[in-house]
Amino acid sequence: MVLAPDSFKGSISARDLCAALREGVLEAFPGAEVTELPLADGGEGTVEALVHATGGGLIEREVTDPLGRPVRAAYGVLGDGKTAVVEMAQASGLPLLAPHERNPLAADSFGTGELIRDALRAGCRRFIIGLGGSATNDGGAGALRALGARFLDEDGAELPPGGEGLLRLRRIDLSALDEAVRESRFILACDVTNPLCGPDGASAVFGPQKGATPEMVAKLDAALGRFGEALREATGLDVAALPGSGAAGGSGAGFMAVLGAEMRSGIDIVMEAIDFERKIRGADWIVTGEGRLDEQTLSGKVVAGVCRKARAAGVPVIGLCGSLALTGPQMEELGLAAGFGIVPGPCTLEEAMAGAGKMARDQMARIMRLIRAGRGRDGA
Amino acid sequence: MVLAPDSFKGSISARDLCAALREGVLEAFPGAEVTELPLADGGEGTVEALVHATGGGLIEREVTDPLGRPVRAAYGVLGDGKTAVVEMAQASGLPLLAPHERNPLAADSFGTGELIRDALRAGCRRFIIGLGGSATNDGGAGALRALGARFLDEDGAELPPGGEGLLRLRRIDLSALDEAVRESRFILACDVTNPLCGPDGASAVFGPQKGATPEMVAKLDAALGRFGEALREATGLDVAALPGSGAAGGSGAGFMAVLGAEMRSGIDIVMEAIDFERKIRGADWIVTGEGRLDEQTLSGKVVAGVCRKARAAGVPVIGLCGSLALTGPQMEELGLAAGFGIVPGPCTLEEAMAGAGKMARDQMARIMRLIRAGRGRDGA
Repeated sequence: MVLAPDSFKGSISARDLCAALREGVLEAFPGAEVTELPLADGGEGTVEALVHATGGGLIEREVTDPLGRPVRAAYGVLGDGKTAVVEMAQASGLPLLAPHERNPLAADSFGTGELIRDALRAGCRRFIIGLGGSATNDGGAGALRALGARFLDEDGAELPPGGEGLLRLRRIDLSALDEAVRESRFILACDVTNPLCGPDGASAVFGPQKGATPEMVAKLDAALGRFGEALREATGLDVAALPGSGAAGGSGAGFMAVLGAEMRSGIDIVMEAIDFERKIRGADWIVTGEGRLDEQTLSGKVVAGVCRKARAAGVPVIGLCGSLALTGPQMEELGLAAGFGIVPGPCTLEEAMAGAGKMARDQMARIMRLIRAGRGRDGA
Repeated sequence: MVLAPDSFKGSISARDLCAALREGVLEAFPGAEVTELPLADGGEGTVEALVHATGGGLIEREVTDPLGRPVRAAYGVLGDGKTAVVEMAQASGLPLLAPHERNPLAADSFGTGELIRDALRAGCRRFIIGLGGSATNDGGAGALRALGARFLDEDGAELPPGGEGLLRLRRIDLSALDEAVRESRFILACDVTNPLCGPDGASAVFGPQKGATPEMVAKLDAALGRFGEALREATGLDVAALPGSGAAGGSGAGFMAVLGAEMRSGIDIVMEAIDFERKIRGADWIVTGEGRLDEQTLSGKVVAGVCRKARAAGVPVIGLCGSLALTGPQMEELGLAAGFGIVPGPCTLEEAMAGAGKMARDQMARIMRLIRAGRGRDGA
C-alpha cells in the first residue's frame, strides 16, 4: 500500500494527509505495510515532500524578502547531501507581502539567490528550484545578483532592486558569477509555458495577481523585453521565446540563460527525486488525491502523474479528494480505479477543509474494509 | 448483486434508489446480475416494496378519510393474490390532514376498515397492516366498524366516529362482524411497544403529534381505557398492556383483540413476504442503505435487518446513505463490510436530498469500480 497524495490546498498538507490515511489503512489491515510518499507538484509543499521522502533536512536562513526586509526562509537538502531544493515562494513569495505591499515594480528575488548561495557554500551542486508563487517580476535578476551577476545601466552603475529597474538595463556582467554555479546543475520545477514577454508573457499574465495595474504591466513587459535582449548579449542564449521563460516573473528566462537551468514538470522532478517508480513496484494499491478531482485533474500534475506511473507498473490507483467531479469515463481516462470524496454527508466547504484529516482517515478505513470484504469474491 | 435499500426518507424511494444503484452497478459490470429488493420497515413505502417484490398489484378505492371526507387510497395485493397489504397511513394518515385539521378527538379510522373490507371481498384472507402514520386515536374502532363491529353507548346507540366518542363506550357488539374476518389472518407491522394507556400509552406519546393538547390527551387516554375494558368484555382478551397495543392510536389493541391479529416487526414481515433469505443466497454483495447511517441504525430496522440476514448467509453488505456517522467498530457491530455517504463533496442537505438518485448511482459505480480493481489482489 503506497500513499502518494498531493496536499489538499488550503486544508491539509500531503504529509499530514499521509499520516491520516495510514491510520485509516491500519484500522482495517493492522499489519499492512504502508509507504508514505507525500507528493507535490513543484509548488507549495515540494521541499517538504522531497526532504521527507529522501531522509534529508531543512536549512533555515535569514535572507531578504521581496521588499528588502529580513525574512527567515528555508530550503531543503535531500538525503544525498548534494541536492538542494529551493522554492522561490520561500524568500520571494507573494504570501510574504500584505496585499497593499504587493508591487512587482519593486519586488526583487534577491532572497532566493541568497538561499542558493548558501547551499552552494554548503557543497550542494544540484539544485531543484520551484518557480511557483513568486511576488516578483524581475526576471530572476535579484537572485542572479546574489550569485554574482551584475545588472548595469548605461553609466555602468548597478540597477536598483525590482522589476522596474530593468527598464534601464544596458548590460549584464557575469564575470563575477560564483564559480560554484558553473559546477552545478539547475533544474527548474515549472508547469507553465508562458514566454517572457507579450500578451502571454510574465507581466501580462501573472503581473496582475502580483499587484500590477495595466500601466505597471506595460512597464514591466518592456523591462523584461530589455532583460531578454541583455541576456542574449551576455550569454549568447535567446531564451525569451522558450516555453516557461515567463515563469516566476521571468525567472525562467534568467535562470535558463545564466544558470544553464533546464526546465521540467514539477511532478516529474519530485517523482524522480523520491524514486517513485521503484517504490511503487509490487504495491497492491496506490492511494493518491488532491483537494478536488475534476476535469482539470486529467491535464493536472500530481494525480495524473501518479496514474501514469501506476499504469506502467500495473498497480491500481484509488483517488481521494475533498470534492469529486469526475465521471466514470474520466476516471478511466485518468487511470483511476476509483475516486472518492471524503465528506461523509452534507457539510460546508469550511467544515470539509477543517476536518479533512479525520474525514480522509475514516474514508480510507471504509475503503480498506470494502477491499477486505471483497477478497476472494468473484462475481458481481 | 442484491440491492436492498430502505428509502432515503424525504428524498428518494427505495424503488427509485434501486433503479439508480442498478445503473451504477452496470456501469462498472455491464453484464452483472442485479436483483432489486427495495425494502421498507412496515411504514411508508411498505406496500410499494411488497407489491414490487412479489409481482403483485395496487388497488385504488375511494374511501373515507379521518374526518369523514372521501379520499382515494390504495392497498396492495401480493403476487399470491391472497395477501393484502394495507397501510393505515393511506386512508387514515396524518398527511391527509392540513395542520389545522389535526384533531384526534374526531379523527376516525373507518377508511382503513373499508380498504380491508374491499380486499376481503376480493378474496384476500391474509392481511399485512402497516400501523405507522395514523392521524387517529380511536383504537381502530372506526376500521372495525367498517368490518361489522358495533360500538354502543349505554342506550344501545352507535357511537359517533372519532376517539372522543369512546368515552361513552359501553359495549362492543361483534355479532355482525364480517364472516370473512374470521377466516383471515392479520399481521400487524409494528415497531413500537407502547401499551394502550397511561404515560407510555397511545394518547400520551403519539397524541400530541396528531394535534392533541394536554387536555385532549387526558380525555383520549380515558377513552382508550374504556375501550380496553370493552374489548376484554367482548373478546375475553386483555390486550391493553401488551406491547404495541398503543400503536396507531390504539389500533394495535383493537386489531389484536377483535381481528386476532399478531404483531411483528415491519422489516421481518417485509423480508418474509419477499422471500429475502432465499433471494440473497449465493449473492456476492448486498447493497443496503438509508438516509442516515448512524448509531440509531444499530437498533434500527431495515439496515440492521439486512445485515442480520446477510451475516447468516455469509454475504458482505455495503451500506450507502445520505449522511454517515458510523465508526469502524460500529460498522462491524452492525455487520456492514463498509458504509459510504453518497455526496461527492461539500453540499447542502437540500442539494443532497434533491440529487440523491444521481449521487447514489455515481457512488455505486465508483464502489463497483473499486471492487473490480480489487479482484485478484491479495495483500494490502
